[in-house]
Amino acid sequence: MAERDLISRFVAGLRTRDDRLLIGPGDDAAVVRAGAVAVTSTDTTVLGVHLPADDPHVTPDVVGHRALATALSDLAAMGVPAGEAYVALTLPTSWDDGHVIALVEAMERLAAATGTTIAGGDVSSGPALVVTVTVVGWADDEHALLRRDAARAGDRVGVTGQLGGSAAGLALLVDPRARTATLTPNVRAALLDRYLRPEPRLALGQRLLRLGAHAAIDLSDGVATDAGHVGRASGLRLRIDVDRLPRQLGVDAVAAAVGRDPAQLAAAGGEDFELLVTAPPERAGAIARAGVTWIGEVAEAAGDDAAPGVVLERDGRPLGWAGFEHRA
Amino acid sequence: MAERDLISRFVAGLRTRDDRLLIGPGDDAAVVRAGAVAVTSTDTTVLGVHLPADDPHVTPDVVGHRALATALSDLAAMGVPAGEAYVALTLPTSWDDGHVIALVEAMERLAAATGTTIAGGDVSSGPALVVTVTVVGWADDEHALLRRDAARAGDRVGVTGQLGGSAAGLALLVDPRARTATLTPNVRAALLDRYLRPEPRLALGQRLLRLGAHAAIDLSDGVATDAGHVGRASGLRLRIDVDRLPRQLGVDAVAAAVGRDPAQLAAAGGEDFELLVTAPPERAGAIARAGVTWIGEVAEAAGDDAAPGVVLERDGRPLGWAGFEHRA
Repeated sequence: MAERDLISRFVAGLRTRDDRLLIGPGDDAAVVRAGAVAVTSTDTTVLGVHLPADDPHVTPDVVGHRALATALSDLAAMGVPAGEAYVALTLPTSWDDGHVIALVEAMERLAAATGTTIAGGDVSSGPALVVTVTVVGWADDEHALLRRDAARAGDRVGVTGQLGGSAAGLALLVDPRARTATLTPNVRAALLDRYLRPEPRLALGQRLLRLGAHAAIDLSDGVATDAGHVGRASGLRLRIDVDRLPRQLGVDAVAAAVGRDPAQLAAAGGEDFELLVTAPPERAGAIARAGVTWIGEVAEAAGDDAAPGVVLERDGRPLGWAGFEHRA
Repeated sequence: MAERDLISRFVAGLRTRDDRLLIGPGDDAAVVRAGAVAVTSTDTTVLGVHLPADDPHVTPDVVGHRALATALSDLAAMGVPAGEAYVALTLPTSWDDGHVIALVEAMERLAAATGTTIAGGDVSSGPALVVTVTVVGWADDEHALLRRDAARAGDRVGVTGQLGGSAAGLALLVDPRARTATLTPNVRAALLDRYLRPEPRLALGQRLLRLGAHAAIDLSDGVATDAGHVGRASGLRLRIDVDRLPRQLGVDAVAAAVGRDPAQLAAAGGEDFELLVTAPPERAGAIARAGVTWIGEVAEAAGDDAAPGVVLERDGRPLGWAGFEHRA
């Protein structure tokens, strides 16, 4: 299929769902009525790197959904609604029209569900499937955002949703030991879904901002790594009790099957695309009711033994787990 | 080199050159004070597809320069100044730190020369070098733009600069016959430079808008293809005399060596990244003085023999050249 035909098909599948778009795909650039402040993030998904290349679960619609979802997750973590997405596709010759259309349609479904307008894109050929999605959200001013560097000493630390499901789902795809775990079909499907079709927490991010949360980050690399980013950016130390991390149903069974501590899967597995948030204690009740589980607190960072970052604890003592860095 | 270290190096090489950037690389997203209207384009460069993979001329700094230049060229064609760029790098294992730093430094040099702020990015590993650059420019309103669909019957059609140099430069890299062309070292170097280090015509695009041009497009695919986009978008027919296309010095010698009509190289070669523009006759003098050569006119499209698009002519008669579509 010629590049130009593909672009036409790509464009034909898209719908505008806000009144911002003034000139859509088809000119040299898309033209959009701006808000006061643009919040922009770019994210790349490489098939065979970010997703296994030869697994029957990893269909074109999974690739499309996940590429847009992981980009939108960064906007969720800033507390802004989704505006526009710009999609650059690099397609290997093994991908035919049907694959590409399935990928774009899945992206468009998620765009519809999240209020995103796919406003532009680019199609190239290449040796592997590479999808780069740039997303833009609009805010009224730069203070109406959840920043990484805005945690304050005394804040409580929480997470949305449940963790470890993505790591367990990936294990079910790539680790033969994981398949020995006893799981009901529904639980198993939910673990796979968490890995393959993560949902960006856009509405929840905006709600946390309105409820008075201070800082947030999305959990792409896992609590162990991402909480460290918040701590270092804020010059503070996040103390997290790993046994308070909410674990998705089935994570414990998969962890047992692969011989890992389930709390480690929840803390270091990554790619759950939930939000980690800090908030002052007086907002803890309202924020908990919005769907946040409190897992720790923000402490002053002082001295060599308490550098800015994160410390993971169990029974009040720092953990010495190895292998905490996310696998990517 | 770990992904995180690479991002740090990447960020360390960047400089902010406008007062728009409120939160730069390091948070989940970049935060930028917006203008009234955002003009956004995304463009991918794949090494081995858009540039030959194993040619000693195709150094990392060529890849970096060209990836940003081709993206900025779309903003030039809209008549807006450059604002921010977001850079997604997919790096093969064969690329070491030195390669990546050279690529980023070349991008940063072009950013400095064009007033662009590289405000964010993403680094992944993958099987080939893929660079996706999303650029944003800001305009006061959507009418203060050069659009593809704004040509009017009676407009003159012009191009900036000189054409065919990029196609001739590429031929010098990949076609042994081209190397038999007799060229002075300077002329040869200029042809290679045109292909390897194109310059986006940002200042000229803005000037053409101020001088009253109607429509514009950047010449990525070549006059033959790109003029057709303007014609179809505007519902009109661009008539272009191929012998009036200004040819870069050395194009004729390379065309002779490879056995092609030099006007065909200028019309269909592509990747010169000059601008094609339409403007009313009363502005022709001022626009010519800005660096535009008039090559044709905009006619009404009427009937099957005169569909919207482009017709290439010689001595007043339509040309039947084959192979007019750009090679990509």
